[in-house]
Amino acid sequence: MIDKASYLIESWSIQESGLDISDLGRSESLFALSNGHIGLRGNLDEGDPHGLPGTYLNSVHELRPLPYAEAGYGYPESGQTVINVTNGKVIRLLVDDEPFDIRYGDLRSHQRAIDFREGVLRRDVEWVSPAGQTIRVHSERLVSFSQRSIAAVYYEIEPVGDPARVVIQSELVANEQLPAWHGDPRAASALESPLRSERHRASGTMVELVHITHRSEIRVAAAMDHEFAGPDSLGVSSESEPDAGRVTATAVLAPGEKLRMVKFIAYGWSEQRSLPALRDQAAAALVAARQTGWPGLVAEQRQYLDAFWKRADVEVDGDPEVQQAVRFALFHVLQAGSRAERRAIPAKGLTGPGYDGHAFWDSESYVLPVLTYTAPDAAADALRWRYATLPLARERADLLNLKGAVFPWRTIHGEECSGYWPAGTAAFHVNADIADAVARYVTITGDERFERTVGLEILIETARLWRSLGHHDLDGRFRIDGVTGPDEYSAIADNNVYTNLMAQRNLVAAADAARRHPDRAAELGVDAEVTASWRDAAENMFIPYDPHLGVHPQSEGFTEHQVWDFANTAPEQYPLLLHFPYFDLYRKQVIKQADLVLAMQRRGDAFTMDEKIRNFAYYEALTVRDSSLSACSQAVLAAECGHLSLAHDYLREAALMDLHDIEHNTGDGLHMASLAGSWIALVEGFGGLRDGGEVISFAPRLPEGLTRLAFGLCVRGRHLRVEVSDSTAVYTVPAGPAMTLLHHGKTVRVVPGQPVSMEVPPTPVLERPKQPSGREPLRFLRLPGTGGRIGPTGPSGSVNSIDG
Amino acid sequence: MIDKASYLIESWSIQESGLDISDLGRSESLFALSNGHIGLRGNLDEGDPHGLPGTYLNSVHELRPLPYAEAGYGYPESGQTVINVTNGKVIRLLVDDEPFDIRYGDLRSHQRAIDFREGVLRRDVEWVSPAGQTIRVHSERLVSFSQRSIAAVYYEIEPVGDPARVVIQSELVANEQLPAWHGDPRAASALESPLRSERHRASGTMVELVHITHRSEIRVAAAMDHEFAGPDSLGVSSESEPDAGRVTATAVLAPGEKLRMVKFIAYGWSEQRSLPALRDQAAAALVAARQTGWPGLVAEQRQYLDAFWKRADVEVDGDPEVQQAVRFALFHVLQAGSRAERRAIPAKGLTGPGYDGHAFWDSESYVLPVLTYTAPDAAADALRWRYATLPLARERADLLNLKGAVFPWRTIHGEECSGYWPAGTAAFHVNADIADAVARYVTITGDERFERTVGLEILIETARLWRSLGHHDLDGRFRIDGVTGPDEYSAIADNNVYTNLMAQRNLVAAADAARRHPDRAAELGVDAEVTASWRDAAENMFIPYDPHLGVHPQSEGFTEHQVWDFANTAPEQYPLLLHFPYFDLYRKQVIKQADLVLAMQRRGDAFTMDEKIRNFAYYEALTVRDSSLSACSQAVLAAECGHLSLAHDYLREAALMDLHDIEHNTGDGLHMASLAGSWIALVEGFGGLRDGGEVISFAPRLPEGLTRLAFGLCVRGRHLRVEVSDSTAVYTVPAGPAMTLLHHGKTVRVVPGQPVSMEVPPTPVLERPKQPSGREPLRFLRLPGTGGRIGPTGPSGSVNSIDG
Repeated sequence: MIDKASYLIESWSIQESGLDISDLGRSESLFALSNGHIGLRGNLDEGDPHGLPGTYLNSVHELRPLPYAEAGYGYPESGQTVINVTNGKVIRLLVDDEPFDIRYGDLRSHQRAIDFREGVLRRDVEWVSPAGQTIRVHSERLVSFSQRSIAAVYYEIEPVGDPARVVIQSELVANEQLPAWHGDPRAASALESPLRSERHRASGTMVELVHITHRSEIRVAAAMDHEFAGPDSLGVSSESEPDAGRVTATAVLAPGEKLRMVKFIAYGWSEQRSLPALRDQAAAALVAARQTGWPGLVAEQRQYLDAFWKRADVEVDGDPEVQQAVRFALFHVLQAGSRAERRAIPAKGLTGPGYDGHAFWDSESYVLPVLTYTAPDAAADALRWRYATLPLARERADLLNLKGAVFPWRTIHGEECSGYWPAGTAAFHVNADIADAVARYVTITGDERFERTVGLEILIETARLWRSLGHHDLDGRFRIDGVTGPDEYSAIADNNVYTNLMAQRNLVAAADAARRHPDRAAELGVDAEVTASWRDAAENMFIPYDPHLGVHPQSEGFTEHQVWDFANTAPEQYPLLLHFPYFDLYRKQVIKQADLVLAMQRRGDAFTMDEKIRNFAYYEALTVRDSSLSACSQAVLAAECGHLSLAHDYLREAALMDLHDIEHNTGDGLHMASLAGSWIALVEGFGGLRDGGEVISFAPRLPEGLTRLAFGLCVRGRHLRVEVSDSTAVYTVPAGPAMTLLHHGKTVRVVPGQPVSMEVPPTPVLERPKQPSGREPLRFLRLPGTGGRIGPTGPSGSVNSIDG
Repeated sequence: MIDKASYLIESWSIQESGLDISDLGRSESLFALSNGHIGLRGNLDEGDPHGLPGTYLNSVHELRPLPYAEAGYGYPESGQTVINVTNGKVIRLLVDDEPFDIRYGDLRSHQRAIDFREGVLRRDVEWVSPAGQTIRVHSERLVSFSQRSIAAVYYEIEPVGDPARVVIQSELVANEQLPAWHGDPRAASALESPLRSERHRASGTMVELVHITHRSEIRVAAAMDHEFAGPDSLGVSSESEPDAGRVTATAVLAPGEKLRMVKFIAYGWSEQRSLPALRDQAAAALVAARQTGWPGLVAEQRQYLDAFWKRADVEVDGDPEVQQAVRFALFHVLQAGSRAERRAIPAKGLTGPGYDGHAFWDSESYVLPVLTYTAPDAAADALRWRYATLPLARERADLLNLKGAVFPWRTIHGEECSGYWPAGTAAFHVNADIADAVARYVTITGDERFERTVGLEILIETARLWRSLGHHDLDGRFRIDGVTGPDEYSAIADNNVYTNLMAQRNLVAAADAARRHPDRAAELGVDAEVTASWRDAAENMFIPYDPHLGVHPQSEGFTEHQVWDFANTAPEQYPLLLHFPYFDLYRKQVIKQADLVLAMQRRGDAFTMDEKIRNFAYYEALTVRDSSLSACSQAVLAAECGHLSLAHDYLREAALMDLHDIEHNTGDGLHMASLAGSWIALVEGFGGLRDGGEVISFAPRLPEGLTRLAFGLCVRGRHLRVEVSDSTAVYTVPAGPAMTLLHHGKTVRVVPGQPVSMEVPPTPVLERPKQPSGREPLRFLRLPGTGGRIGPTGPSGSVNSIDG
């Protein structure tokens, strides 16, 4: 057997050398391909061995009952969970009379790579069968950005030394057996055999299978077709049964002779469309893909990605790991959202079943800020999905005795699926997060039609929610009591600063949008009295402050709680939620993830710089980062406060979350928010991008070690390029009208074709804030130059012990 | 068919005339017999029809999994639920060839009664069979106070008009079929066939069945034996099978001739004892009972109750309904606790499966105050049960990252069985409630041995808990954050006044007890430094106060929350918990049950009279009494504040909770705490009894309409009799040393044999506080004189609409 897998540090690709059979799940997530519509985990072509087989179609889910030891009014009774659908990736190979299985025989070499400019997973294997026959397998796989129903595989086999008889079985398999669930509440509950066969047919090189889910009644059509090239001895046959279809090709190959196959896979699914309609849809997609052909699909892929990188690439000089990680991140964020098209972007994209395939607030708060600047159409589509769920959100509000709309904490289809209300229903901030994403999208793109047809109604319904959720106290302050903020180690608290500030923005944004579209607002029942009451609530929004400590409490009373006993918490007791009861966590000062810090990131206008510095230091000492959503926000605020080295550390932690499997659950899928967070840490952190004001603003500053940072942003149809070095920042707009921005508070006018160079002011020298003992940011071994290997993550279960 | 059931207002009994087949469950609870060890619902002898068949043995339960939609650390995974055990009540009767079933033929008359001085359920039926045969059945049933393993039935049948052949089948039945569960979360989850047969035997007039529960592995032996008297034609046989045993007697009776049967039923159960041991235990109990005979058992019963009433009777002149209700209540509280003997007193006693048969804080907070003064040995035994569960409570504390002991919120066997932690685990006050019950028992009885061997350790372990649960803030205040007080419409709040005041008392009581038993305390690891830290925490206990409103917030910040929109809450939306989410309830000012008011009751020393009056009025306007635990405390504080008429209304509501089925769930069992509450409302309310100080104190005052109140209390071995009229209170101690007490703040010395008469001061005139619209206390039609009928409860689902 060859060495364990290692990943090379390359600026434009992820490359794996060797294979770690005990850690296949992680590599399957890292090498997952998706276009937001279809997602294929990076399973080996031959199916076995696997960490977790995974083929996902956006929104295809099954229902499952949500049980409660003690029931309560308004508890959701039905959950939704993503299912592993019909798998078209499987290509089994028989060499002479032995199956190609890397666990047997001798695996001479095994290489996998995705070049982010290509969007194709390439694999090269040299294997000696137990009987001594050497073969080379080369395969390529893509999920098409240009033809969203299509995935395709190019597969090539060549004997070495001796002639060989090979049999290729290209399969389509439904209801695959899945490994047993491993008990982590953050993972998914796998459902067995979620699909019921409705139709199967094999004909020539084509197979089609149609299934329907048992309870959610979603119909899924999957079809495959093939092209073969090989010696004259090549023979092809096909067959099907309810849960499987197979096209078999066989040939005797002389050494150096190759058998080549292209496999086209098409999917169609719907809650409503009939069996014949879906069958025809998949068949039609196949015809188009065959006509395009493999080289055509590859070329379209490259073209799509070229356009993306042209506008979105982030260049980082001085930290090759971060350079690789941010491109890896942008690639996966694009994959998650590019063609999701009015369906949700789940927390794990379509890379794995983690969190049951649900979308959370992560989507609007982390992923959409990136997509808004780099793939704005994808951002708009994701918000259109939320818009499509407004009727369900209105029903939920009604059930909860509230006005407007209450969007779910976690869902696939739009219904609330959270089975624990203190961390679900009570986390109302998701509604402001959605409204904030709407407002950002409209501000940055200037898409007035979107605002009028989609955004306005979301803003209005969420503003109505906040107005009914809060109330004025006797002093006239507008309070929002008993809610849960972003930090999941607190719950059901009064006047969470993040929630109140985001609600404030929501109320004002809704009133402003209603003023821009008074006729449409009137149709929605909003007049000047209504908007006045929103503005009043926003103006009087209560933001608690602790004058003794000189900091903002995360929620009212928070700073009076007992500080967690960090000194007596052992490294293996993290994440705390697996070792301490919520009761204990909620009542103490201990923070899972940025909450007040996130408030300072999103609503920086509500804090003075002094407050930011004091608050940041205070919350640093309490934050354990048991959530992958935290490091990027800490990076942003650290950078703003001038703690540039600390910001760099957090950037690296966010960026390397999945590449280093820091939370030991990358195998369940990639953390989309943390991936987006690496962009956020760079662009909002070291670029200092803020977009809450009249014009977008920058406050770039690089930490020691980073010599250059360049990034592109789509702003109102223009491509703004920002290039930051140690001493200067250069702003460039290639074409379009001139634009105005702020650079460290100074107004800058950027005329197309005339780059503006601005000085970067010096960084104040501040003491580095302390983190809880043992929870300092990870400091990975930084490797010089490119061509190194992705460093170690530290001993299992103790990710924080290295070089701290 | 005869008229619906009606209940007569009699001072010493509950009497039913007629039968309401649609409401059998309620009558089965009202006529339940128990000695705290065995409980028999008042099912008809012949088994059918029934509301809910029920035979309970204290602590006999089955385990069931507690499921969670989203799991969490420390969530109990196994629940306990009371089971319906082998039923020995069933006596089927065949008259000629027709079964005696009141649903068929013609029920001429049906009377049932329990005289509280006798403790025997008597039933008289005259029935005409469908074929026209008239019979009279007279039966009597008891659960023996003197022989705690024994229940017995006297059964007599007599034909009227024509001779009849009768067959009596006296049965012992396991795994009876139960009606389907009706979905109310406050009810129980019935388990099907919880018992597995281990042995069955029939011999002569005797049958024995031994079963074991499947998962909890509790072995239950049940046996019955019989005596018959009848004409010479009498023939008797017996048989058994795994889940049933039967003794059959048959005779031809001439008109006026009777067939008489006495049935003795014995139970034995254990988690540990072997099958032969338990079998023999039940058989031995049967032998003793047969030797005593039916008249003997009846006489012993009367003797036991005579002694009880002599010390415990409460006389109320002027409100015959309350007179009846308080004796009904005392009788059932005695039944629940008298022979429980180191097992729990469940919230429903042994009268029904409601709340899964669990014991809650109700036991210590409502039932034990009554038993401490009326049946102190029973109170001691109930606390010994808690003591026996200390090892489990220490384990639970450890799991929760706390010191000392954490007693469960709900349990049968001692393990936490609450599946919803915000209203379970977080309700830490249960620990102070237990400690308070210990301290009261020791103060009132002077039982030093109990304190040394049982009480001290409970006080110490609960004090340790509070010391670790709270912390000092920067101002040196001792805070207890994130807990849930008694009011279940609030949760997870900081510095709940009730909790903090009760914890304060707990800490001081533990320190005082340790000072009295320094050697024993030292063995338990408690030295002067430890007790000093308890006294320090108690001294600096933070009691929040709202200076603007001039009231104590129930918990910190409570008075700043939005007031519930009572005006727009419809009568059918109560109880609120069935129509609104916890999220909504928790964050608003709406109160299910006395919380701050209970704090003023139990810790009256911590409030000035002005504060009490202001607080009481404030919380009256917020309290909806969706809990049966509330009215009695409101009665007590209303009386203290001088709202005597309001106190009378609340007294009546507490006292008539089950007799009028106010919460529509009496069928699941009687509300022991509310029953105890009728005594509390009278004795602590109009008697003004308080026992937190150096000596017990009284502040008697009667409302208009009550002309006399007299009650007896056991205080340090003496019987103190208090007799209150409009203008005077007379204190009498028949024997023993003199005692000192307070009467309206004046010290009174009562010498045995010399009644002391004290003047009752006039009541200040205050405005009657307002309740939420539609939630005023029930004002039942008050009927003049005795001999009336128990009044209506108002239209179903709208208990508050009458005469409000």
